[in-house]
Amino acid sequence: MPTFDVPQLEEISVRILQGAGASEDEARIVARELAGANLVGHDSHGILRLKQYVDYIEQGYIRPGADVKVVVNAPSIAVLDGGGNFGQVVAARALEIAIPRVRECGTFTVLCRECNHVGRLGSYTYQAARQGLFAMMAVNAPGPGGVVPWGGLDRKLGTNPISMAVPWEDEAIVLDMTTSATAEGKVRVALQKGEQIPQGWVIDHDGNPTTNPADLYGNAEQGVEPGAILPLGGPLGFKGYGLSVMLDVVCGILSGAGIARTDVPPGTNGVWLYLIDVEKLTTGEQYGAVVEQYVNYIKSSRKSPGTEEILMPGEVELRRQEDRRKQGIEVPDATWQQTLDQAARVGVSLEGI
Amino acid sequence: MPTFDVPQLEEISVRILQGAGASEDEARIVARELAGANLVGHDSHGILRLKQYVDYIEQGYIRPGADVKVVVNAPSIAVLDGGGNFGQVVAARALEIAIPRVRECGTFTVLCRECNHVGRLGSYTYQAARQGLFAMMAVNAPGPGGVVPWGGLDRKLGTNPISMAVPWEDEAIVLDMTTSATAEGKVRVALQKGEQIPQGWVIDHDGNPTTNPADLYGNAEQGVEPGAILPLGGPLGFKGYGLSVMLDVVCGILSGAGIARTDVPPGTNGVWLYLIDVEKLTTGEQYGAVVEQYVNYIKSSRKSPGTEEILMPGEVELRRQEDRRKQGIEVPDATWQQTLDQAARVGVSLEGI
Repeated sequence: MPTFDVPQLEEISVRILQGAGASEDEARIVARELAGANLVGHDSHGILRLKQYVDYIEQGYIRPGADVKVVVNAPSIAVLDGGGNFGQVVAARALEIAIPRVRECGTFTVLCRECNHVGRLGSYTYQAARQGLFAMMAVNAPGPGGVVPWGGLDRKLGTNPISMAVPWEDEAIVLDMTTSATAEGKVRVALQKGEQIPQGWVIDHDGNPTTNPADLYGNAEQGVEPGAILPLGGPLGFKGYGLSVMLDVVCGILSGAGIARTDVPPGTNGVWLYLIDVEKLTTGEQYGAVVEQYVNYIKSSRKSPGTEEILMPGEVELRRQEDRRKQGIEVPDATWQQTLDQAARVGVSLEGI
Repeated sequence: MPTFDVPQLEEISVRILQGAGASEDEARIVARELAGANLVGHDSHGILRLKQYVDYIEQGYIRPGADVKVVVNAPSIAVLDGGGNFGQVVAARALEIAIPRVRECGTFTVLCRECNHVGRLGSYTYQAARQGLFAMMAVNAPGPGGVVPWGGLDRKLGTNPISMAVPWEDEAIVLDMTTSATAEGKVRVALQKGEQIPQGWVIDHDGNPTTNPADLYGNAEQGVEPGAILPLGGPLGFKGYGLSVMLDVVCGILSGAGIARTDVPPGTNGVWLYLIDVEKLTTGEQYGAVVEQYVNYIKSSRKSPGTEEILMPGEVELRRQEDRRKQGIEVPDATWQQTLDQAARVGVSLEGI
């Protein structure tokens, strides 16, 4: 299993994405997001995605070079049309537009449409929080989803994730969660490893609870229809469902990204980014002191058996990031082979990295 | 069990609250919120609360007549200091300030501090959605909470609810949920009825799962310490916990309302209200058409056994509101007796209502 550092991982992605038709700037933005996901341990959003992106470019779903246009520009909200460019490019542009304006207005909101897969939301909210902002970001699935509505058996919603982050010393507290019982990627990983999934994640096509990850995908050859993912909450799944619906309305309908579209692949995103400037409300010093007091207050709780420490949201990722910075990022052989295949496919060499 | 219509319920509250020291305007705002909660079937937030509010006025926790001051006024965000007035009065003022400004800016955010119990969040977001706005509202508990952090055994967080609403024909789709496994009121109702609660809502003081609602409250006489409420999500409770933490930071820390305060009673709120003007992004007609298409798409799902119909968030309340408008609102004898007691306590008559 080869091991890389962040600059090496970025360089690998840059070469492949440029080979596939991205400009250097676009390739660098996407590469940074992929390597960042690997760094915090979310390998499902890391360089593993290169194949998908090269596929999408080939299929016309991702259009490198497309202009990202501001189509609504009101005092505290903008809507961007990404023209089908990489989600990462559109989301980076959203942040770039929003940051000077949140300094001016106190809050700023950007919605994005015609935007491919943005990747890990927690990366963007973390970047914003490191600049002294509260950040909220959510996406919907304008294309095919995998999640049932509450009381339903059919795939109608995406896993519609939401992230929020706030400054915490030199780092950030970062929530990044799907509004479904699981992300699809975790079911796929269990399937590949031949493991069962926990009860409560997935139902088969007829609505039976299952711990067999294969039930999510069905089997076309054997005439087995695919199952679906349940909303977050178990017996309180109306809450996960409700959150998901509201994200569909804002990220999908208000942005113009859409819902239930058949002309986009799974994983396409409608985006909602909302920023608040902490320094418009309090001083950085005062804020820092109260956050420290709050974190200590939470962490002072007695612990349940098996819990070593009460963690803040996103603290696991902060620690993994520290470890992987020191030890390097291992890329599983299968992922590395797939990456080499993509390099060959687009005709670039990964020599000398 | 006496039955009333909305104007009667409002008049009952107005007389008692005025008797307790509220101005007529303040009393009318609170009365409207209480009757509105009864109307949609959330009796735990209805006129049942009058005793708590009269208690709080007597104890100095609610300060009728206190000025609601704008302490931060940036282009797209304001912070209000409620001076300890009724939460309903502060929240109504927040909406009143925000609505003209969201028309101008496209979005507007208000945070509130020194604000008592605002009541049912879904009422305010519904009011905003009926005016063509997307509305999000959340509150934290600056005072004592009842919910454990993920992996913890001690009460550290409030039930920190969040509501979102969007226009839907002449009505609204309204999500209104706690980020905990249950609201405290539901445990209290089970206790009063002598019923068990579902597994997964509550743990006892030592962290054991329990279905006995009494375990939440403990028993001081017998030296049994109170238990706590679990975060939303069951085995995915880190998600409910994470949402709750982020709401504490925005509603509590950014607003200045506070966290872990010992000088305020349970139920006090820090408030976060965020509005988006739909017409800044699309026409009302286009929006309505896409929402209709979306609702039909969701509702067309095959149903699980026992599900009569797939409902949109808040649709249960819309139907209950219609029923209760026709049939009147029954007030349980115990609640009615408590209401009569409050009238006697503050020296007003409920005759002629």
